[in-house]
This record gives sequence, C-alpha cells and structure tokens, in this order.
Amino acid sequence: MRPLVAVIGGSLCSKETSLLAEKVGEHLAACGVVLVCGGLGGVMEAAARGAKRAGGTTVGILPGFSAREANAYIDIPIVTGLSHARNVIVVRSAEAVIALPGEYGTLSEIALALNMGIPVIALKAWAMQKGVLHAETSQEAVQKALKLLPGFADGK
Amino acid sequence: MRPLVAVIGGSLCSKETSLLAEKVGEHLAACGVVLVCGGLGGVMEAAARGAKRAGGTTVGILPGFSAREANAYIDIPIVTGLSHARNVIVVRSAEAVIALPGEYGTLSEIALALNMGIPVIALKAWAMQKGVLHAETSQEAVQKALKLLPGFADGK
Amino acid sequence: MRPLVAVIGGSLCSKETSLLAEKVGEHLAACGVVLVCGGLGGVMEAAARGAKRAGGTTVGILPGFSAREANAYIDIPIVTGLSHARNVIVVRSAEAVIALPGEYGTLSEIALALNMGIPVIALKAWAMQKGVLHAETSQEAVQKALKLLPGFADGK
Amino acid sequence: MRPLVAVIGGSLCSKETSLLAEKVGEHLAACGVVLVCGGLGGVMEAAARGAKRAGGTTVGILPGFSAREANAYIDIPIVTGLSHARNVIVVRSAEAVIALPGEYGTLSEIALALNMGIPVIALKAWAMQKGVLHAETSQEAVQKALKLLPGFADGK
Repeated sequence: MRPLVAVIGGSLCSKETSLLAEKVGEHLAACGVVLVCGGLGGVMEAAARGAKRAGGTTVGILPGFSAREANAYIDIPIVTGLSHARNVIVVRSAEAVIALPGEYGTLSEIALALNMGIPVIALKAWAMQKGVLHAETSQEAVQKALKLLPGFADGK
Repeated sequence: MRPLVAVIGGSLCSKETSLLAEKVGEHLAACGVVLVCGGLGGVMEAAARGAKRAGGTTVGILPGFSAREANAYIDIPIVTGLSHARNVIVVRSAEAVIALPGEYGTLSEIALALNMGIPVIALKAWAMQKGVLHAETSQEAVQKALKLLPGFADGK
Repeated sequence: MRPLVAVIGGSLCSKETSLLAEKVGEHLAACGVVLVCGGLGGVMEAAARGAKRAGGTTVGILPGFSAREANAYIDIPIVTGLSHARNVIVVRSAEAVIALPGEYGTLSEIALALNMGIPVIALKAWAMQKGVLHAETSQEAVQKALKLLPGFADGK
Repeated sequence: MRPLVAVIGGSLCSKETSLLAEKVGEHLAACGVVLVCGGLGGVMEAAARGAKRAGGTTVGILPGFSAREANAYIDIPIVTGLSHARNVIVVRSAEAVIALPGEYGTLSEIALALNMGIPVIALKAWAMQKGVLHAETSQEAVQKALKLLPGFADGK
C-alpha cells in the first residue's frame, strides 16, 4: 500500500496554475506517492499529466456515471455517481492535500479536509484560511506533504 | 410541498449565537418555511427549537446511523450514515441557506452551496466569502432568504 | 419525533400494485406514521397519494438535483444528488420497510435494509428472500410494520 | 486507463470460496485487469491476494474512515466514510462484476449493478437472480467478464 496525496484545484485554470500543478504531480510521482484527484480537467488534469510523466500512478474520483469522463492521464477511474459528494472521498482518501487555485469546489474540499483532520498545504490557494499550511513552490508543497505521511520520512 | 431553508452553523456555539439561531428558526417557521439542518447540537438545535416554538416543521439530515442522535426538536430525522457527505444533502435540499458562526463543517457547507448555485445568507459567519449575502439580524436573514424562494413573495 | 416507515417498489407499476401501495400509505398515515420513500413515480407516488389522503406527512429522498422531480404528494423533498446511493438513505431512515413489487432498485433496497438490520415486510414482492417478513394485504403489512416500531404498540 | 472488474462476496467465507476468489483475482490480474473490491476480508481479501500473486493492481473501496481497515493486499485504498453507500461505488467503477457467495451486502451489490446496467457474472452466488450470467469455474467467470469489456477482446 503506497501513500496517497490529493491535489485539488479548479477544473478551469490559468496556464501558470496548470504548470504549477504539473510540477506538483511530477514531484509526487518521483517520490513514489500515488496521486488522487477529482479526475476531471484543469488542475486535476495537469497534476495527473505531471505524475504520469514521472511514471507515477494516478487515481481519479469522478463525480459522474462513466469512466469516460476521466482525463487522459488517469490510471484508475473511480466512478461514484455522487456528484459533489465525491469531494469528500477525494480528500478522505489522502494522507495530505495540496490545494492549488480553484473556486468553491476547491474551497469545499479544503474545508472538508480540515474538518476531518487531514492536513492541507495551500499553494497560492484560498490563502486566508486558518489551519492551512502554505507553500510558495511546487517542491516546497510536496516536501511539506511528504513530511506528514506516517513513516515516509524514514523510507517506509 | 413547502419550501425548505437550511440553517447551518457550529455544533458547539456561544449563548449569543444560540439565541440568534433560535430567532432565525422562529422567523422561518412563522413564515411557513420548513427548517432543514444537520440535526445535531449547537446552532442546529437552537434553530430547530426556535422553529418548534413557532409551530414549524423541522428536518435533521443526520451523519450517523440512528435517529436517536437527532436533537430533541427534530420532527423528521433523515438517517444517512454518510458522515461528512451528508453536508451536501443539507444544502442541496434547501432553496436558500442561512449560515451562522461555525467551523470548517460550516465553511464546507457554504462552499458546497455556492458551488451548486444555492444562495447563502451569512449572519455573522465566515464574512469574507465572495458570493455570500450578508445580514445583521435574524429578521433580515430570513427576509433575504424568503425573497429568494420562487413564488414565495407573492404568497404562493 | 414521529416514526418513519419506508414504502419501496417500482417506479413503474401495475394498476393493482398502485392501489395496494395507496392503501399502505393510507393505513400508515392513519396510524400517525411518517411515510418515507424515493419520491418518484409508481409505487412511491401511489403510497404518498394514499398517505396524503389520510392527512399524513410524506418524505421523498430524491436521487437527482431538484425538488421538482418529486411526485405531487411529497411534503418534504430531500434532494440528495446521489443517484442510486440515495437508496441507502431511504431504508436507513426507516424503522421498518414495506416492499411492494419492483425491479432491481427495489431488490437493492431490500438487501441493504436486511444488511443494516432493518426489518422488511414483503407485500407480494421478491418473495424468495430469506430474512423478510410476508404480508398478504396492505393492512397486514402495516400492522406487521407497526409492531416493530419501538414503543408504538403502547401508544407512544 | 486499464479496465476495472469488481469481485464481490462475503466478508466471511468458507475455505472453498476463498480459494475460488483467489483464482478469480489471479486470472484477472494475469489478463491485465485492475481488481476493484470492497477492500475488507473474506472474498475481498482472497481475490486481492490472488491478484497480487499474479502481479496485478488492486483497489479497495472502503466503507470506513481509515486506509488501515484495508486488507494487506490492497494497493489503492479509497476511503469513503460512506458505510453501505460505498457498495454503489464498488460496482459503478467496474466494467463487469464477478459475484461469489455472500450475504445481503453482496445481494445489494448485485441488485445495484443490474439496476445500473453493469453485467454480473455469478460464480456459485445468489443463483436465482434473473439478469445474471453464470459461471462454474473461476476461469469461466473471468472469460465471461473479459468478453464484456469494451475493446478488450481485440487486445486494446
């Protein structure tokens, strides 16, 4: 069982955010972490693309009724049919959450994670929330996430 | 079918917030609105108590496995067993959401509601969110919510 | 808090089943029980119509995204957006389940109820299941359900 | 994206059923299919063990709140916190479902799958259901499942 880290953010995003998400996915995969995300476009797609480039494994927790709605970089599509309630599963399945810029869906995932005691690292996202760790670069975000994984620091 | 309005907020709350929630519940019930909430303590219990005092109907969308976890003022306990995912149902069932002070659970409900296009009236709660209407008194909050109910203004 | 009893069955049904469901709803309401169902057509609509005729309260746990999908006899529409997963909530919210003829959706609700330890009374439905009580008439089904409600026999 | 096939069955099972489940998992993995299951004991654990022996990938859709409840052969634990509602996700994520002996939880998954139009192959399980395909051996079950995967027959 390998640790899962969630990357969350808008299903539409700027070029800059997309590049940032891609690097986050790439760093996570390089460290042997499984990427979990909402499986759709924008930040989710960019992070999955980065993870696949580094040879990682990607999981998409989909809101709809078909694996076909997953972006092209998802290895394991989980088809929930639960619409917004799938946000709960994205964060609950993760040991840590890295949040990039997004809208209310992203905010709901940050709030749900904090409510469940799952650590959140904000990378240029919803910066005003108390309880959230902050990172300025993709590398810093991944390092902060990995420090939180039980036993990960010592190579387990 | 009568309109449902959700009242959300912390499961623990100050005396002041409790009184405010109670008045919100009372006003809603007096206007013939069904109160929906998370069914537990704090703001949820105070709002339900206010609604019952005014002869209203109260619905509690419970996170756990038994109707017995509902507070004493819930008429209709909906037992979901879905834990945090029940937050989605609380707001989705409402035509409008009145948010009182709370923690991350409340914030997740505000974000989910905004994500779904359900209007949120903040009554001294999470005041910085864009997209949220604001109210200073329980009466103002209820009036703003009722204005948003389709056909309610003209007595339907 | 009044007890809830679920009535389940096909969203399409024969005239005969419809009349049976209507009588079940009527008896339940006459006994002061709140009817909970899936909120759509067929057996759900007939049972709710019967309950309203007897002055009862009806709750519909809807699979979709709008209260407008509820049938005309639902007082309290609970909008889940959870598709088939709402079946879990229909049975979990009930003290007992009365099952009329239906298809796989109905069978899933019977199985979920039995899995959760919620008693099921089959009224001409999926008759081969072990663990299910049987009834031949609407009155017998309601009587068997009421006997199972804690404290109901002695007029609480 | 590799196809997912679900293996369902009791969380407690006989030695004979356990061996059968293990072979099903082994065949699926040997064919390059990802195994999805409920992640707990009995049939779920045996199938995952078989899949890992053949070098496959295993996904466990967990009902509770921690990845630690997954059996030892799960690569990707999906933590839902949804209790019985997670059954919906197990079958919805699969292109086909192989059902081994089980109790009401298994029956609910068979019924949910049929309700969603997902094919079910029964391997000595709940044999009376209409709409279910039947298999006598683990190999026959896997072959019938693979025939149903879009594009799988021709090596995609």
